[in-house]
Amino acid sequence: MESMQMGRAFTLIEPGPVVLVTTNDGNKDNVMTISWTMVLDFSAEFAITTGSWNYSYTALRDSKECVIAIPTVDLIDTVVGVGTCSGSDTDKFTKFNLTRVQAKHVRAPAIRECLANIECKVVDIVTPYNIVVLQGIAAYFDSARGEKRMLHAVGDGTFTVDGRVIDRKKMMRDKLPNGI
Amino acid sequence: MESMQMGRAFTLIEPGPVVLVTTNDGNKDNVMTISWTMVLDFSAEFAITTGSWNYSYTALRDSKECVIAIPTVDLIDTVVGVGTCSGSDTDKFTKFNLTRVQAKHVRAPAIRECLANIECKVVDIVTPYNIVVLQGIAAYFDSARGEKRMLHAVGDGTFTVDGRVIDRKKMMRDKLPNGI
Repeated sequence: MESMQMGRAFTLIEPGPVVLVTTNDGNKDNVMTISWTMVLDFSAEFAITTGSWNYSYTALRDSKECVIAIPTVDLIDTVVGVGTCSGSDTDKFTKFNLTRVQAKHVRAPAIRECLANIECKVVDIVTPYNIVVLQGIAAYFDSARGEKRMLHAVGDGTFTVDGRVIDRKKMMRDKLPNGI
Repeated sequence: MESMQMGRAFTLIEPGPVVLVTTNDGNKDNVMTISWTMVLDFSAEFAITTGSWNYSYTALRDSKECVIAIPTVDLIDTVVGVGTCSGSDTDKFTKFNLTRVQAKHVRAPAIRECLANIECKVVDIVTPYNIVVLQGIAAYFDSARGEKRMLHAVGDGTFTVDGRVIDRKKMMRDKLPNGI
């Protein structure tokens, strides 16, 4: 996985993929599946919705760190599996054969099998809405990976896979940040 | 467009489609393109990121109402066009041949050409992060529409179209709200 320019990291989240979020509680690593995510800013500020109903939440809140990992379609059963068991009684990295890669700035691990990873610091938690505000601080992209199609959770137990790409860069030139 | 159960409306936003958001400032209607959206709750609470850089923002903040309309791939040039001009000098409904449908609970109009429409009230604006918290109050879905594939903005001027659907309802049964 090569480093990715932080100013491009929002392009991983904006299309709305289901993501894996890793945490470390000071003792052990954990990973959860999150499909409620949003870009807040071109400068790699993101939001995710989560709360105490997720076992990872305590580690996220207390360590103030996580890694957002972007899985692709070949990982569908890992995504669903991670989302349907709990770190309270399961080592999900072992169960789902996920390879931890040590992150540079946070204790939570990156995931080798994912297309991209974004190391994040928790900036704030907007408690009335369970919105966790994250600042991306480093990003990595595996451009050598053959499968790059992301998954979109519909929320009813089905997932939509990325289909064809439509290019409107020329029409949108004036609306895009420099260098994107 | 038939009424859609409010408890299912999150399934329109969770997959991360680019959306059109209509407003009415008490005088005239406007519409903007928004790709930074997130589900906050199964009970149809949503977040969008926007701010004073969008002309619609004043109407959204002051009227405390909007409609989220979900466009499909056949509307790609409308989506990009709406997102690259301003209601300050353009009647976008006329320019892009969008048909207004009177909403039931808000002054902002629904859009006939879209796959679905969600009438929303502004619950809060989390100003440090430009997060507008919305409560969906009525939803409509055009099941007779042939084209149902949504668009996902990547953020670099390209858009990914919904591809194939993968069903994992059985694996996820225990995680889904009742009736979904």
